Amino acid sequence: MKKNILVIPGDGIGPEVTTWGKAALEKIGEIFGHEFTFEEALMGHAAIEVTGEPLPDETLEKARQSDAILFGAIGHAKYDNDPSLKVRPEQGLLKIRKELGLFANLRPILLFDELLQASSIKPEILRGTDILFFRELTGDVYFGEKTRSEDRNTASDLMIYHRYEVERIAHKAYQAAQQRNKRLCSVDKANVLESSRLWRETVQEIAKQYPDVETEHMFIDNAAMQLIKNPKKFDVVLTANLFGDILTDEASQIAGSMGMLASASVGESTGFFEPIHGSAHDIAGKDLANPLASILSSALMLEIGFGLKEEAKLLVDTIDQVLKEGFRTHDIADQNTNRFKVLGTAEMGKLVLK
Amino acid sequence: MKKNILVIPGDGIGPEVTTWGKAALEKIGEIFGHEFTFEEALMGHAAIEVTGEPLPDETLEKARQSDAILFGAIGHAKYDNDPSLKVRPEQGLLKIRKELGLFANLRPILLFDELLQASSIKPEILRGTDILFFRELTGDVYFGEKTRSEDRNTASDLMIYHRYEVERIAHKAYQAAQQRNKRLCSVDKANVLESSRLWRETVQEIAKQYPDVETEHMFIDNAAMQLIKNPKKFDVVLTANLFGDILTDEASQIAGSMGMLASASVGESTGFFEPIHGSAHDIAGKDLANPLASILSSALMLEIGFGLKEEAKLLVDTIDQVLKEGFRTHDIADQNTNRFKVLGTAEMGKLVLK
Ligand SMILES: CC(C)[C@H](C(=O)O)[C@@H](O)C(=O)O
Ligand SMILES: CC(C)[C@H](C(=O)O)[C@@H](O)C(=O)O
Repeated sequence: MKKNILVIPGDGIGPEVTTWGKAALEKIGEIFGHEFTFEEALMGHAAIEVTGEPLPDETLEKARQSDAILFGAIGHAKYDNDPSLKVRPEQGLLKIRKELGLFANLRPILLFDELLQASSIKPEILRGTDILFFRELTGDVYFGEKTRSEDRNTASDLMIYHRYEVERIAHKAYQAAQQRNKRLCSVDKANVLESSRLWRETVQEIAKQYPDVETEHMFIDNAAMQLIKNPKKFDVVLTANLFGDILTDEASQIAGSMGMLASASVGESTGFFEPIHGSAHDIAGKDLANPLASILSSALMLEIGFGLKEEAKLLVDTIDQVLKEGFRTHDIADQNTNRFKVLGTAEMGKLVLK
Repeated sequence: MKKNILVIPGDGIGPEVTTWGKAALEKIGEIFGHEFTFEEALMGHAAIEVTGEPLPDETLEKARQSDAILFGAIGHAKYDNDPSLKVRPEQGLLKIRKELGLFANLRPILLFDELLQASSIKPEILRGTDILFFRELTGDVYFGEKTRSEDRNTASDLMIYHRYEVERIAHKAYQAAQQRNKRLCSVDKANVLESSRLWRETVQEIAKQYPDVETEHMFIDNAAMQLIKNPKKFDVVLTANLFGDILTDEASQIAGSMGMLASASVGESTGFFEPIHGSAHDIAGKDLANPLASILSSALMLEIGFGLKEEAKLLVDTIDQVLKEGFRTHDIADQNTNRFKVLGTAEMGKLVLK
């Protein structure tokens, strides 16, 4: 198979971890005889520094021409500390999601047995958890009109959904549920929000086309609680952009660490694969980041982007093996024991490749 | 002390639990020689059934004339299943919050040692946690304009904040932080939302007036994760209406159960005290609900509403004692052991009163 992959390292720990996601793809290419070619492009603060823009036209052009994108992370403390800055790194990520029509963000909560202990949640609560989130990614309050009054004392963001936006992601989520445990939980705030009422109505309609899937509707506040109270009860979770952002970060504690979770954004064309962790400026450049989420992003690219199941499985199994052998990065090591061999970003990356 | 208390039982388990919150106030009145008089009023589905309105004028009138309000819960499955219904129970709660100017919702995460085991989170992660949430309660996407297009295919809610709304709750939160561990974490999504940027800017300004308090700003997705990863790091958490709704429900797992958490809504005049749990239709009328959150709501009324610290402490200590003696309601009992004496709503209520 011939594939042209665009690597966008982005900000913070993005470059460090993406190195290993890319290396994993190269290695898989070698082993299985695929011809993966790579290009690189700028986005976020890294792009602002060079071009003044968080998403330069050139990056978008390259993205459109690629078969898949491997992305690192975005964001920089400078902008977080100064909310008045007009040009911001995250605008790059939001724009590329919109421009490429990446309306469905899949976030599988993959639980490695070896990491049951790394979570703040009790192992017996976690064991057996297997959740696949479908987060809507190109609508909601993320993309609705923003206003700031002239006196700067009033600010607003429009939370808005169109029926077709809910329908298309609902279909994807139901189709996935049919391949899994046939349960779908749709999360909204329909007791307060009109956009959630449209969401719920639409999901109720689509549900009729999938009578083999059991549908539940849950309010976001309750879902945030149930997710840690009893994660096993969830199979596919379908939700809006903002609620999905919150729930999936929360769910990262189920997997032991954000450093272990990858996501796939798909939609109209090219798929976009990235860790769910952020740019983590505080540890950037210190060889402390966990490269496994980027390698798992590559696994998702192989599986979801290219349909290469066996290749994806090899990556996941290798990570499982490395964890079984007691190797850990800082985020997933238990500080209280000497049971683990704690590695830096690069050592961990190399080990997985070996 | 003479106080006139309005009891609004509301829907679902509301009436069952409020019975005990009210009884606890009566008992405290007797013991300490206060003259508490009670009135009752309708709200939510209970009110719609009788008057057609979720908040009848009579209820609002009584509320304005009372010194404090003890509320139960709101909501009904009928409306959850049919998003197209125009008159909805929750409108009553939102309207009374707005009409009474209850802009600050205080949600203390009170951790009873005895319940450390009832949580899905590891006891060693929880031990020592003591968080006080300040959730803004009369602004945000809850109260911004709602629209639905004529073809019913587009729906929106306006997420909007005015600077004064952020200022007044920030002051309250900072003042509380000064009395506590002098740390305040403000939660927003300033990397994406304009209303969050106004929020962050404003909190940064107010922070200057409280140099003895250490301020941190956190994105909501990260906060949802940190809250269960390391709850001890939080002292006062200040956040917007929607984010506060989500985070405090999530935080209920820290306290072992939603059935243990009370909240106080304060602002311009009369205080409003309620459990953070919902109407839980599935267990309503079955003597399964936990009345402790309602009794703890009464404790908050005594402390925050009337400044009666000793009286409030007696209630909290009594609950602590009952838990120490091994008594539990279903939600906080560990199903796997026979260590606990599991009681129904009424038995637990009676026991605390004794
Ligand atoms: C960086 C930020 C804009 C982004 C989001 O909120 O979508 C991130 O948190 C994510 O989840 O991918
Ligand atoms: C019932 C609902 C409208 C309410 C809210 O969202 O505010 C509830 O969840 C709460 O937290 O008090």
